[in-house]
Amino acid sequence: MKVRVLGAAAGGGYPQWNCNHPNSRRARSGDPAAPQRTQSSIAVSSDGRDWFLFNASPDLRQQINENEILHPRMGLRDSPIRGVVLTNADVDHVTGLLTLRESQPLRVYATRRVLSVLAANSIFNVLNPAFVTREPLTLDQPVELQTPEGKASGIVVSPFSVPGKVALWLEDATKGPNFGSVEEDTIALEVRAKSGRGRFVYMPGCAEMPPALASRLRGTDLIFFDGTLWVDDEMIREGVGVKTGKRMGHMSVSGPDGTLATLRDLGIQRRIFIHINTTNPILLADSAERRAVEVAGWEVAYDGMEVEL
Amino acid sequence: MKVRVLGAAAGGGYPQWNCNHPNSRRARSGDPAAPQRTQSSIAVSSDGRDWFLFNASPDLRQQINENEILHPRMGLRDSPIRGVVLTNADVDHVTGLLTLRESQPLRVYATRRVLSVLAANSIFNVLNPAFVTREPLTLDQPVELQTPEGKASGIVVSPFSVPGKVALWLEDATKGPNFGSVEEDTIALEVRAKSGRGRFVYMPGCAEMPPALASRLRGTDLIFFDGTLWVDDEMIREGVGVKTGKRMGHMSVSGPDGTLATLRDLGIQRRIFIHINTTNPILLADSAERRAVEVAGWEVAYDGMEVEL
Repeated sequence: MKVRVLGAAAGGGYPQWNCNHPNSRRARSGDPAAPQRTQSSIAVSSDGRDWFLFNASPDLRQQINENEILHPRMGLRDSPIRGVVLTNADVDHVTGLLTLRESQPLRVYATRRVLSVLAANSIFNVLNPAFVTREPLTLDQPVELQTPEGKASGIVVSPFSVPGKVALWLEDATKGPNFGSVEEDTIALEVRAKSGRGRFVYMPGCAEMPPALASRLRGTDLIFFDGTLWVDDEMIREGVGVKTGKRMGHMSVSGPDGTLATLRDLGIQRRIFIHINTTNPILLADSAERRAVEVAGWEVAYDGMEVEL
Repeated sequence: MKVRVLGAAAGGGYPQWNCNHPNSRRARSGDPAAPQRTQSSIAVSSDGRDWFLFNASPDLRQQINENEILHPRMGLRDSPIRGVVLTNADVDHVTGLLTLRESQPLRVYATRRVLSVLAANSIFNVLNPAFVTREPLTLDQPVELQTPEGKASGIVVSPFSVPGKVALWLEDATKGPNFGSVEEDTIALEVRAKSGRGRFVYMPGCAEMPPALASRLRGTDLIFFDGTLWVDDEMIREGVGVKTGKRMGHMSVSGPDGTLATLRDLGIQRRIFIHINTTNPILLADSAERRAVEVAGWEVAYDGMEVEL
């Protein structure tokens, strides 16, 4: 299986459009230790020809332009992108669907909850239903992704619920401290090749790591994991926001309940942070925090990163 | 008044993601005679500090990154973008609003019809209503754009209806041959500096040129005009689509009812094509069609083009 990181940054990208934090300024200035990153998405293929996007970021058009594997090859209208799998309805994960206009065959996979949100927003009708099917994912039920023509992709995806929060734009403050979030709002994907070699987990958003979830990750070959914030109060501390990571549905990288600590002894062979916020110092190649995650055996994803397993 | 062209291409951009037409292939290959173009939008300012976007394209994040005038300058969160004016609800004109997340003060101007469409699509709630106001435009009623703080911008905009079509994703086939389009679905903007020097018209979509509309344009200093297609059946002829320009709400550049002919004798000082489809040969610096529009006194917009008046 081949994985191409299309975008490694959290919602807003790196730099975020209205962020003047020193991290963002370094990226904007072209500092080689602070390379820009688009919003989080990966492309997955078992054969290097047919590709499936995991999440469709607002930067998708730029990501397609910058990744030759996603350029059309045959005839006059064509795309190697054969489907999209969504892990939630966040703006940074669904907006790219609007780029996949308009009469190109595709399959869009998501939970019924997320599909209902797309259905309730008529702008997604720009994906012509005569060409684009919407396929419900059922929690804990593995499914082999298919091309629009019904060809088996060789990629088997098992969706499972993770602690999280409903998308910001769907929050309902009248529904208590979790804003009306339900189990299907945030999922992760366990992915394996049908041929049986290798398995990885894609988990760009995760609010906490209860023991049952940790057990599920034990011994995975590879994980792409939520790297949004270094510390929970980072946005407040840095003066750029009023929300904690927990409030946004993201556990932090550092600290006793953080990712480095809770995923340390699970025997995961390769660990990669993705969905990294514009304020997170692990984005900077020369930061102490980057050094700390590398010493702990983690990598920090970048746009164009290739992984094979 | 200063105008910066952020994107000069029609919906889908140049190259369009799934287009393998020779025009698109040349852009993708880096051919200097076929420079890539993002989706259509301009930024307007009377002072070079506060900028207003006319339409918000799906490529807006990339456009901000590529135009230093739109980078944050002060404090930790900031943007020179103070408002957005929409001419319709097309995906290529409204999707960029989702990039202007999430707690940055802004004013969004559009007709009541287009605002109602945004209101009916909850994804646009990512623009936090505590910070972003939605301002109805009334046809033929001039309004001076304001910053979120209520400061006069010095830019006076007069919206007027033009022949067009409701956005693709809002088409209702049960409502007859115009798919339920109403007057407020497609507008153009006449723009003048309050100080009184110069006036231009921004008209990225126009389906035909009746005499009353032509009269309105007479003697304008500058026009940015719909350059979607060279000929009406271009997409069919080139094998990349099934729709005519008329069907999509765009008159074509050439031909007896085309733009070159109908705008020829109106005494418009400077004429610039914008919103140009990936198939239109005027995109190519070395094409006979480019030569023809230049001989007729027209320019072809490109990303980063600067105009002052």
